[in-house]
Amino acid sequence: MIQIPKGCKDVLPSQVYAWHKLEDTARSVAQAYAFKEIRTPVFEHTELFARGVGDTTDIVNKEMYTFLDKGGRSVTLRPEGTAGVARAFLEHGLAGGVLPFKAYYLISAFRYERPQAGRLREFHQFGCELYGAAGAAADAEIISLADTFLKKLGLKEVALQINSIGCKHCRARYHEALKAYFAPHIGEMCGDCRSRFEKNPMRILDCKEEGCKAIAAGAPRMLEYLCDDCRAHFESVKNLLSKAGVGFTVNPSIVRGLDYYSRTVFEFVSAAAGAQGTVLGGGRYDTLLEQMDGKSVPAVGFAAGMERLLMVMEAENCMPPADMGAACYLAGMDAPSREKAFLLAEELRREGISCEVDLMERSVKSQFKYADKTGARFVAVLGERELAEGAAQVKDMRASSSECVKFEELANYIQRRL
Amino acid sequence: MIQIPKGCKDVLPSQVYAWHKLEDTARSVAQAYAFKEIRTPVFEHTELFARGVGDTTDIVNKEMYTFLDKGGRSVTLRPEGTAGVARAFLEHGLAGGVLPFKAYYLISAFRYERPQAGRLREFHQFGCELYGAAGAAADAEIISLADTFLKKLGLKEVALQINSIGCKHCRARYHEALKAYFAPHIGEMCGDCRSRFEKNPMRILDCKEEGCKAIAAGAPRMLEYLCDDCRAHFESVKNLLSKAGVGFTVNPSIVRGLDYYSRTVFEFVSAAAGAQGTVLGGGRYDTLLEQMDGKSVPAVGFAAGMERLLMVMEAENCMPPADMGAACYLAGMDAPSREKAFLLAEELRREGISCEVDLMERSVKSQFKYADKTGARFVAVLGERELAEGAAQVKDMRASSSECVKFEELANYIQRRL
Repeated sequence: MIQIPKGCKDVLPSQVYAWHKLEDTARSVAQAYAFKEIRTPVFEHTELFARGVGDTTDIVNKEMYTFLDKGGRSVTLRPEGTAGVARAFLEHGLAGGVLPFKAYYLISAFRYERPQAGRLREFHQFGCELYGAAGAAADAEIISLADTFLKKLGLKEVALQINSIGCKHCRARYHEALKAYFAPHIGEMCGDCRSRFEKNPMRILDCKEEGCKAIAAGAPRMLEYLCDDCRAHFESVKNLLSKAGVGFTVNPSIVRGLDYYSRTVFEFVSAAAGAQGTVLGGGRYDTLLEQMDGKSVPAVGFAAGMERLLMVMEAENCMPPADMGAACYLAGMDAPSREKAFLLAEELRREGISCEVDLMERSVKSQFKYADKTGARFVAVLGERELAEGAAQVKDMRASSSECVKFEELANYIQRRL
Repeated sequence: MIQIPKGCKDVLPSQVYAWHKLEDTARSVAQAYAFKEIRTPVFEHTELFARGVGDTTDIVNKEMYTFLDKGGRSVTLRPEGTAGVARAFLEHGLAGGVLPFKAYYLISAFRYERPQAGRLREFHQFGCELYGAAGAAADAEIISLADTFLKKLGLKEVALQINSIGCKHCRARYHEALKAYFAPHIGEMCGDCRSRFEKNPMRILDCKEEGCKAIAAGAPRMLEYLCDDCRAHFESVKNLLSKAGVGFTVNPSIVRGLDYYSRTVFEFVSAAAGAQGTVLGGGRYDTLLEQMDGKSVPAVGFAAGMERLLMVMEAENCMPPADMGAACYLAGMDAPSREKAFLLAEELRREGISCEVDLMERSVKSQFKYADKTGARFVAVLGERELAEGAAQVKDMRASSSECVKFEELANYIQRRL
């Protein structure tokens, strides 16, 4: 028997209600902030991610699903959502349109990693992108949107941590300070960090190796090296969040795993979200669009991991109730009443009432069993007498009471009681 | 500048409302028929499609996005939705659960074809799968669901065509008759049809080459070779559809492009849907699950092409209205009133009112221009005096009238007028 690819997961009909809750909440919160959905392809030309995600990242170096299409072009299943949105924004000339550009996405993304709790090879993200606005209000709006989303899911134990990693000017000074600090320790650090030391020493702060973590603990902190503009920006973000009632702590070790961030970075973390703890992360990336096309367009955004959010919802007892069964099951006793049940069901569905009829040629007893198992709210029974009288015996499956209801009144009868 | 891969298409925030209409309609109709959503991975092991779609099909032979993952396994981006659902159904042992199994999917699928109107390399489908029910009522329910979906979209010029292609018993006799008919013409037929002649002569009826079409026009028809059971089944499907008011014509040349069909096949066609004309197609495939796992489970289903449906909606003037702008834009005149606007917007959003504030540090005049361009319903203006008085000047952008509204009454004021 052929099985699902490793690291992928089916969502069965009995499980999908939790995903609907997540997505409906994401859509309604995004809409409250006047963000509209954007959809970009599942795969892009590989160079997009090399340029847009950063070619010093693990994602691009180790984790991408890259292949040649039949025309011989290298394409890659998207490992994240931002690069595609940025590409679409530039390609359609939206930088010359109404700004800010405010878009959200709900996507599958793909990384070839070791599967573990809350981390799959095909995983799902809700993300927001806000392009064109350089001011602190944009950062605060994005963070507040994320905070509202998590609160609307019912989550209470998720904590917001923020930091500033400055701009390219203040970061140059910081990189020097970091190199001076790490240089004497370089022999004790892992291979990845030795390469990070050359390319992007700040990412050493993000290393998960215990040895590297211990060394990094004493490193100088970015916040001490912020230039005046970056410092004022960060203060302004903190001020707006505080006044809007969005609780946070400043965590100087947050640098985010991607090369394109600048100034504000943030993570919402939960002890129930697996090894890394982050359920939603983002920040400002003012150089990303420039890096892709030469056009300088400030940008801020976030992405949330849906699988991890589901883990946290489970842990915090925030799972929504499962889907209901059909509003009405129409059971037929013989061939003519089965046909009538089929036709009545069609009429009720046109009125928006969810209905089922027997498709398995079962006895009435077995039809009742099916209706019970699937959680049908009412069962309408039809037989020879009911057809003659133009009325069905309608059983309320919660109250266990029965009533005789004329066919033409069935829709009303059910609608009034749902 | 890096561009979108050929044959793929972005859906921009200004265009997504049409997709939402399609998907919301699909979900609500599926729900009325008590179908629940299933989600399977974007890629599967390649052998699944060879076995589940059929290795004599163009899809499997020419059009699949197949590649090796980093572990050296051959995987393929799904070219259609049924094989993945069937795999999930078998892998999770659902054949032993409550039957019938009724599931729908809304997916991206991938075929490397020459892009043309209504046909993309990444395309989108709404599909339904009904497993476990062998009777004609299941076929009629699936066809009726599809018909209701298209009617709820507002489409009136889409015509249902149905046919029966029998079971393996009556088809064996039919294949012989077809071979006898085509044998004298084999030299005049295209290379594909010559290979079809050996593997599956019925698919010659589906060929788009003019020469082959002309020859096929005189071929014997499946309907004349149906066995008694298949004929009774087809009569029963037609009877239920007629009584339920689902209009159709019988078209003996419908065979569907995939190997796994048996008995009922159907297509909804529209002159506005591009070269092939089919917007939704499906049928019964009682041997598919057996072919994959040895378990005999009857099955019936359909898939609809979303891109083609959008073309037809456009042609029939059924496109929904575009999304509205924010319910309220809060304009600030100076730093304190901008901060107040930010905080008031947060409060309104918590009440479910969609809001925007200036993130671009624009003048009040430019803020009004933005609010107008994006279609905001109300603009609340805040300045020094408004802050002192605890009330905003609220302009109704449709009526062009203004009123002074206390901050604490703003949510109510707007909600009452939306």
